Amino acid sequence: MIVVTKHTASEQEILSLVEELKSSYPVEVQRITGSGCTVLGFIGDTSSIDMMLIENDSRVERVMRVTEPFKKANRLFHPDNSVIEVGGRKIGGKDITIIAGPCSVESEEQIVGIAESVKASGATFLRGGAYKPRTSPYAFQGLEQDGLELLKIAREKTGLPIVTEIMDPRTIESFIEDVDIIQIGARNMQNFSMLKELGRTRKPILLKRGLSSTIEEWIMAAEYIMAGGNEQVILCERGIRTFENYTRNTLDLSAICAVKKMSHLPVIVDPSHATGLKFMVEPMCMAAIAAGADGVIIEVHNNPEKALCDGAQSLTPQAFDKVINKMRKYAEIEGRQISEV
Amino acid sequence: MIVVTKHTASEQEILSLVEELKSSYPVEVQRITGSGCTVLGFIGDTSSIDMMLIENDSRVERVMRVTEPFKKANRLFHPDNSVIEVGGRKIGGKDITIIAGPCSVESEEQIVGIAESVKASGATFLRGGAYKPRTSPYAFQGLEQDGLELLKIAREKTGLPIVTEIMDPRTIESFIEDVDIIQIGARNMQNFSMLKELGRTRKPILLKRGLSSTIEEWIMAAEYIMAGGNEQVILCERGIRTFENYTRNTLDLSAICAVKKMSHLPVIVDPSHATGLKFMVEPMCMAAIAAGADGVIIEVHNNPEKALCDGAQSLTPQAFDKVINKMRKYAEIEGRQISEV
Amino acid sequence: MIVVTKHTASEQEILSLVEELKSSYPVEVQRITGSGCTVLGFIGDTSSIDMMLIENDSRVERVMRVTEPFKKANRLFHPDNSVIEVGGRKIGGKDITIIAGPCSVESEEQIVGIAESVKASGATFLRGGAYKPRTSPYAFQGLEQDGLELLKIAREKTGLPIVTEIMDPRTIESFIEDVDIIQIGARNMQNFSMLKELGRTRKPILLKRGLSSTIEEWIMAAEYIMAGGNEQVILCERGIRTFENYTRNTLDLSAICAVKKMSHLPVIVDPSHATGLKFMVEPMCMAAIAAGADGVIIEVHNNPEKALCDGAQSLTPQAFDKVINKMRKYAEIEGRQISEV
Amino acid sequence: MIVVTKHTASEQEILSLVEELKSSYPVEVQRITGSGCTVLGFIGDTSSIDMMLIENDSRVERVMRVTEPFKKANRLFHPDNSVIEVGGRKIGGKDITIIAGPCSVESEEQIVGIAESVKASGATFLRGGAYKPRTSPYAFQGLEQDGLELLKIAREKTGLPIVTEIMDPRTIESFIEDVDIIQIGARNMQNFSMLKELGRTRKPILLKRGLSSTIEEWIMAAEYIMAGGNEQVILCERGIRTFENYTRNTLDLSAICAVKKMSHLPVIVDPSHATGLKFMVEPMCMAAIAAGADGVIIEVHNNPEKALCDGAQSLTPQAFDKVINKMRKYAEIEGRQISEV
Repeated sequence: MIVVTKHTASEQEILSLVEELKSSYPVEVQRITGSGCTVLGFIGDTSSIDMMLIENDSRVERVMRVTEPFKKANRLFHPDNSVIEVGGRKIGGKDITIIAGPCSVESEEQIVGIAESVKASGATFLRGGAYKPRTSPYAFQGLEQDGLELLKIAREKTGLPIVTEIMDPRTIESFIEDVDIIQIGARNMQNFSMLKELGRTRKPILLKRGLSSTIEEWIMAAEYIMAGGNEQVILCERGIRTFENYTRNTLDLSAICAVKKMSHLPVIVDPSHATGLKFMVEPMCMAAIAAGADGVIIEVHNNPEKALCDGAQSLTPQAFDKVINKMRKYAEIEGRQISEV
Repeated sequence: MIVVTKHTASEQEILSLVEELKSSYPVEVQRITGSGCTVLGFIGDTSSIDMMLIENDSRVERVMRVTEPFKKANRLFHPDNSVIEVGGRKIGGKDITIIAGPCSVESEEQIVGIAESVKASGATFLRGGAYKPRTSPYAFQGLEQDGLELLKIAREKTGLPIVTEIMDPRTIESFIEDVDIIQIGARNMQNFSMLKELGRTRKPILLKRGLSSTIEEWIMAAEYIMAGGNEQVILCERGIRTFENYTRNTLDLSAICAVKKMSHLPVIVDPSHATGLKFMVEPMCMAAIAAGADGVIIEVHNNPEKALCDGAQSLTPQAFDKVINKMRKYAEIEGRQISEV
Repeated sequence: MIVVTKHTASEQEILSLVEELKSSYPVEVQRITGSGCTVLGFIGDTSSIDMMLIENDSRVERVMRVTEPFKKANRLFHPDNSVIEVGGRKIGGKDITIIAGPCSVESEEQIVGIAESVKASGATFLRGGAYKPRTSPYAFQGLEQDGLELLKIAREKTGLPIVTEIMDPRTIESFIEDVDIIQIGARNMQNFSMLKELGRTRKPILLKRGLSSTIEEWIMAAEYIMAGGNEQVILCERGIRTFENYTRNTLDLSAICAVKKMSHLPVIVDPSHATGLKFMVEPMCMAAIAAGADGVIIEVHNNPEKALCDGAQSLTPQAFDKVINKMRKYAEIEGRQISEV
Repeated sequence: MIVVTKHTASEQEILSLVEELKSSYPVEVQRITGSGCTVLGFIGDTSSIDMMLIENDSRVERVMRVTEPFKKANRLFHPDNSVIEVGGRKIGGKDITIIAGPCSVESEEQIVGIAESVKASGATFLRGGAYKPRTSPYAFQGLEQDGLELLKIAREKTGLPIVTEIMDPRTIESFIEDVDIIQIGARNMQNFSMLKELGRTRKPILLKRGLSSTIEEWIMAAEYIMAGGNEQVILCERGIRTFENYTRNTLDLSAICAVKKMSHLPVIVDPSHATGLKFMVEPMCMAAIAAGADGVIIEVHNNPEKALCDGAQSLTPQAFDKVINKMRKYAEIEGRQISEV
């Protein structure tokens, strides 16, 4: 951490600042005296220092971190890729994970039918929304607990582990019981009380990037879960909000490269929610694999036109089958594979 | 609501689409036949129609709303400004509301001292964080329930009603008991399970705009609370995330004008969090009043340099006193007043 | 084009509006009468109508386009992909175009050396900045006309056609004479006097997307050139400005899919400027091909550490060779090829 | 300037880096040796150093500026506010400047009529577009040179100095001859060849902020003009592009405070283009003055509904008169005045 003093700070003020910093934090302080300002360098463990506290000081112009503020998620301290095992499937490493299913669970027939069809194509996980975050209070809010029950039936029939979104910390018990991977949606990425609660569980968590979260904030949200003791976090890029509105969001594929450099956690891509446009799902899946993603999560619906939500971005099972076959070729170039179970 | 059909849709397809729409929704459908496409207009109550369901249809190119998707918050159906009464103070109408206090409650001495000083200057409410949303799990998370207790002491000593942020639906009972206005922070603006829960209470809610929320999404979040029966919602503009990073966020003062046109709800401004810079708080308070805001929420700390969070943006009591005096002059031009209690 | 009237417009006002519109534009007007508003549909050629003029009218609530505002660039009227031929190379169609070279031309030795090396690896065009847009007036501004001369020497020695950026309409004559493809940089994408001037030439134009341009505005900039008679426009996605600042810009690969749907023009990707980070260039090149791009433009420098600009994002010739070899495999999956000349 | 070395750089590498830096730049280098990295501080004049060149080095992790990259525009070296005199009017200082007029010059009758009416209300400058930047090549492009002639007639009849936008460096001669303040539009803010050319003149320049320009880039664009010797630059905030699209752009009033802190140049606000909405012009004018702006530029049209461009945001002369009267009261609170000529 580097502290730049104010242009106007006197030598006496700088000396007393150095003394205060040394006595407050477990660090050594070194100094560079320039013509316009003085630079103080902190040597030691600065991760617990609150930058703002120092930035506040009337003698201080600016504080800059030299090292990243996250530890458990940091590749520096964990050089190998994390591989997370769920129901016999590996997420991360050489494997490409394919999570597929409808936006919302609608009925037993629907979810079982889709589960069977995506499994036949090669999907490794089933997704489906039971609790749905909707912009309007008047829109369909999901089948809630009944939806979880239907997902369990689909899992039983197909063997596919299930991924679904949690929206309330009061339902954590049933999610732990019923679900294989708990998803945190973009709107809850900084729902810190939920992150802390999930940190106390040992369930794998799929953590979607917030609509306007920086990559660092996203990794810090993972750090919240990991700091609680749950290191099974899978990141999911799902588009960020920009001025462009041809697509619902702007898929940030360079974020994959950034996450891979900064962190050891696996990262997957959601092209369906990112673009909101069916015709972009296939090319964006291929681009995700080419960019180094560990998998994709794709909306598939047996009858997209009658889907109770987000049908505009859902693939038919036939289209999904085509996508997964093409992905196998891309995975091969990268020396990776869509794991058969 | 207007439905534009695909260029490629046949006459037969359009006719059957019209029939399906008429049988699915309580609306009449009228038609304009163009050279490149056909436009269908829905006449009747369209508020419960899920646009996406129709957009999904293979015969449909685009669906556009002509009317806004919110009802209870809509000025169209409630032309007069809403005025919300809390502890004898009016929010909205002719009154300018001044909420002041520290980012975090730190100790009895601190919160009582600040409360007394902001009251003396003319603040009408006391703010102070007990549960704090922090980007890092290693940063100070607030005094939590103990913080609420200290706020109650400050209220008892000064008579100022208290405003503080809720972060977990499991604490709603104690917030209803202890707090006068419950704040929903920017990161929880679309925490829909919390919004629904608060809709069941009868507590006034201060709803901050999300970092990347459109004005419409923000009003829709208010609609979630109002749809549950709680119409006491106060909106709070606190800056949006943009590419500019000289300021922490970009304060969107034109949003005040937009909200006033679209909705009858009161709207206040938080210049402290929006800019993150102490020297901008005074001019942005004046600009807020000039733009038509119903009040401001300002961070005040007796010792900003030692504040446990966000000191960089906190005013001293002396600076706050100067701001409030200047605001009185601005209020007067607008025919408004900072209410004396 | 659809016109929605104001809630408050009287029947008499609507009737006179219809009459005025019919007499001002070569269109027919049809009408849907709703409970809250009236919708007017225009039938006929609306491309020359200025939406704002109508939106202005006191009887009008909103005007919406149903069709896109561009014609020459529109895939609707030109379903096949455009293929542009330059110096025996094809841009668009089955071919993948590889434009490589340094950010700035620095010396004959440098530009000839890089040209020979990228040619040996398989590049099909040479890029190099002679006139450089720099944020600071104190930074290196390029060798200007001397740079053009050095590019010509490199072309003569290698046979690679050259691509370089124009910054001033007063230099068009020498660019037409000296250069094979004239590049318009992101900052000049809406330099309309330059676009018009280039529309009068018959030179191929590489049109970079502006930092904050929507896809529609970008295609409209192409339309400016095409409206002047020059239909040889190649679009180039180079990242957009967002709140994320880990990367210099956010590469918007979904824009490739959007452009391909809306327009017949070829579109290439610039991963070097988009990300500003060397280690992202390879994965983003692969992702670009996977997303359907017609080529890439890559910064290559023989000694990136000593580059006079943008070295942080330049590949060495060795790294470039590796990238191009990997791209061949990706191109093959897509049924495309990096053309040998 | 601070250079942080890579975690992996050896002592030998650091020593040789220090030697190279000392021999390349007129600076002294001091050093702090931390556990994870080494920090080098540059002492001396670093304004001509190209940060990128150093960031490029394989031994370097990051380079951070401690001081701002602009000099002539910097308040540090010019603590007093600049006041620019044009035709007897002062821009900056105690005076509030009011520039008013139509988006486009349409006819002699129109421009003279509007000029007379805004002058009567108290405007100090006349604006009007002769060359118009339009998104579509098919939209009205302005009366061009004829428009300049009409502006001159209006100036002659009213005595109001004129402000109009330049779009092509080839027209600079006639602008110098005909115009009192030359405006650079948002789309040309980084048209560097134009900025340099205008730096060679001695005409006052109104420099609009680019749609996605940071405040620093905007001041750097002013620095381009000033570096050429022309120090008469007036900045103009006109809204930035964000995800919000209720308003055309998002007016960034906190930028006023930032500019005032960083620079001595005057800064005015354009609420008409920022919001694109007539009903927001009045409140945003008041907010601009409250925020510390040195003036406003407002679109006024005698018949907004028939305006050839941007009528949706134009005030009638009557509405403008009301705005200017209210602004006088705001100016008074701030100890400022709308100067009578």
